[in-house]
Amino acid sequence: VSVAIVAVGDELLAGAHPDLNSPEIARRLGQLGVDVARVCVVGDQEEELAALLLGLARDHAVVVVTGGLGPTLDDVTRHAAARAAETGLATSEEALESLRRWYAGRGVEMPTANRRQALLPEGARLLANPVGTAPGFQLALGGATVFALPGPPREMRVMLEREVVEWIGANGPAARSPERRMHFFGLSESLFAEGVGPLMDRDAEPRVGCSVADGVLTVVLRSRAPDPERARASLDAATARLRELFLPHLFSEDEPRLERVLARELVQRATTIATAESCTGGLVAALVTGVPGASAVFGEGFVTYSDRAKRERLGVSGALLERHGAVSREVAEAMAAGAAERTGAELAVAVTGIAGPDGGTPAKPVGLVCFATLLSREPRSTERRFPALGRDWVRTVSAQTALFLCLQRLRERPALGGARPD
Amino acid sequence: VSVAIVAVGDELLAGAHPDLNSPEIARRLGQLGVDVARVCVVGDQEEELAALLLGLARDHAVVVVTGGLGPTLDDVTRHAAARAAETGLATSEEALESLRRWYAGRGVEMPTANRRQALLPEGARLLANPVGTAPGFQLALGGATVFALPGPPREMRVMLEREVVEWIGANGPAARSPERRMHFFGLSESLFAEGVGPLMDRDAEPRVGCSVADGVLTVVLRSRAPDPERARASLDAATARLRELFLPHLFSEDEPRLERVLARELVQRATTIATAESCTGGLVAALVTGVPGASAVFGEGFVTYSDRAKRERLGVSGALLERHGAVSREVAEAMAAGAAERTGAELAVAVTGIAGPDGGTPAKPVGLVCFATLLSREPRSTERRFPALGRDWVRTVSAQTALFLCLQRLRERPALGGARPD
Repeated sequence: VSVAIVAVGDELLAGAHPDLNSPEIARRLGQLGVDVARVCVVGDQEEELAALLLGLARDHAVVVVTGGLGPTLDDVTRHAAARAAETGLATSEEALESLRRWYAGRGVEMPTANRRQALLPEGARLLANPVGTAPGFQLALGGATVFALPGPPREMRVMLEREVVEWIGANGPAARSPERRMHFFGLSESLFAEGVGPLMDRDAEPRVGCSVADGVLTVVLRSRAPDPERARASLDAATARLRELFLPHLFSEDEPRLERVLARELVQRATTIATAESCTGGLVAALVTGVPGASAVFGEGFVTYSDRAKRERLGVSGALLERHGAVSREVAEAMAAGAAERTGAELAVAVTGIAGPDGGTPAKPVGLVCFATLLSREPRSTERRFPALGRDWVRTVSAQTALFLCLQRLRERPALGGARPD
Repeated sequence: VSVAIVAVGDELLAGAHPDLNSPEIARRLGQLGVDVARVCVVGDQEEELAALLLGLARDHAVVVVTGGLGPTLDDVTRHAAARAAETGLATSEEALESLRRWYAGRGVEMPTANRRQALLPEGARLLANPVGTAPGFQLALGGATVFALPGPPREMRVMLEREVVEWIGANGPAARSPERRMHFFGLSESLFAEGVGPLMDRDAEPRVGCSVADGVLTVVLRSRAPDPERARASLDAATARLRELFLPHLFSEDEPRLERVLARELVQRATTIATAESCTGGLVAALVTGVPGASAVFGEGFVTYSDRAKRERLGVSGALLERHGAVSREVAEAMAAGAAERTGAELAVAVTGIAGPDGGTPAKPVGLVCFATLLSREPRSTERRFPALGRDWVRTVSAQTALFLCLQRLRERPALGGARPD
């Protein structure tokens, strides 16, 4: 099954916000063994969308469209699909009835604007929306099947599962080549390429690809071996080689998010963590508490942005701040110690640095960030000089580094069940 | 100038991370009055990318490609562009020299893998990369101009500015219709459409479009009036009408990010803020401290995830927690009061709720979130029952709501220079 995705909306096209639906759909279909071949973003233009749908229907078996099904006149997906199929639009009584029920369930009358949402291209199958007002539809276009889903992620998600995933299950995906993923932190693409050498050749088996996001280098290995056993052997050999080459950077072979790997490790070791943040301003705590069930490992964090907060909340001494400055390994260590002492957490991590754009000096430039961890009262600290690539970037990579340093310290200790990555 | 953007990468296509380059390019070109007509995401496939480039070059004057210029063999943009232009590849001595200098400046020898980055399609113009190893290129393809830029955002950004923006300045963008934007919080698209009525008709002047992200409804008004004066009058009238209709929801007419509008308002009123967070776990503090210069208005935040932390750090009484539960307006008020008292901030905001997926009860379901603000010692609290649309969503919309409630409270007070939105 060859799949294309279309995201519709002037605001997506203008870059007001990124298209997050397409990545989510691609990930979900990927789990089913279906690769997406093309993603397109177009504006709220009926003619353009119609032409794009026709073109994609020629080259792909399935086209998933998100967006443009709202009640307002800039929602043109219904009209564009009808135009592409050279058919008309008709009000679906079933859709209208379900819209009325949706509003009745909320004790309000249906706004007349929403009548538009009951229109469907003739010949289309209605896709019910259990969590919102916009129904979707499924339409044959050339030899392809078009699924039109609403744009709001939560509505898209439910209907993707109920309709598209269901349909692909029934119509059978093409077999996909087996793959493995490995996630590294603090390793650049160039160094990786240099280290692996001919393993990355175009015709190597397995094929090795890599990409970087927020400091995490993800390596994908895909086997082209003709049978599953040989594929497994080939992937085993290549992953073993990569582990050997880059072990200090490897943090996971399944989960790409550092905070989830860290939370898992904390749970396995029945260890709790506390955070003390200056320049990251709560990002580390927000990442950790974003993991479901975080309360088992996290009780409390300190966002001590000012010197006063570092003194009063964490007991960092005024003399220490005076002598070394707020951005120093010494202050980071004192922050971590203060956080551990006040919370009783076994592991504490502290971050203090200069995120910019202002506040840098020749001795302490923008991008200088100091980190400390304290594990069972044993302190350790380090500093990084990140390139000054913008406040957001410095903060994000600092938060990621803090998580990685915590993970490293935990894994230095033998644990029940061994301490190998994952 | 009609512009298309292509983002290249298997990982983007597989949804491992979203394409953030294209929105950034679209926003930048939008500032120049140039609208992007199409965005495409494709994988690391030379043939596919070549075919796509040919197709886009037929319909657009400019094609901006990002990604696929790295040193590894899965970086195929150079080869695909050469294939599309039916030309060969040659090593650029200039590029090779600059690569060697780049590495020399860092005291290391150039890895041989990077030699690949000095390849250019014949006839292409080299675009120097001052901040990384991947040079870009500019190539005539059919009647179109193709710009190939590196994928890492910081490198893309610099070269977009130096090359693409420069080129568009020299080659003159088409005049674009004047537009205005308005940003609302807590207003659904349906309610907006119902309220504005015929203002949103397809042929209304100005044309009104809207979109929602993280609870923020952005309305774009575009005039099609033939001259600037009539366009201004038409936009003035429409924005005045929308202000009248939805004033309580309107928070900005320029900046779409709530935390930036709030920080600006705090600076203007010389007011400081403190945060006390349970379910949002540091997100509110991270948003506020993400604004450059945040230290002028923010000294400290508390991430009190456990009951113990609420008691010990914020002085919430055990009896109160017992009587009302941690998720209650009473506890939210006590958290805000504790944060204000301990930090001396004039404004404090507290959030406590059930983000899920677990922890809900019939009386306090997942999605119930309580908020309190304290301004000059005057408390106020409220609760929201958000739909249980996932932990991330509940946390994000809760953090946004906290920012909006702070902004509302500040704006109730007359300030120097008036208290109108923005």
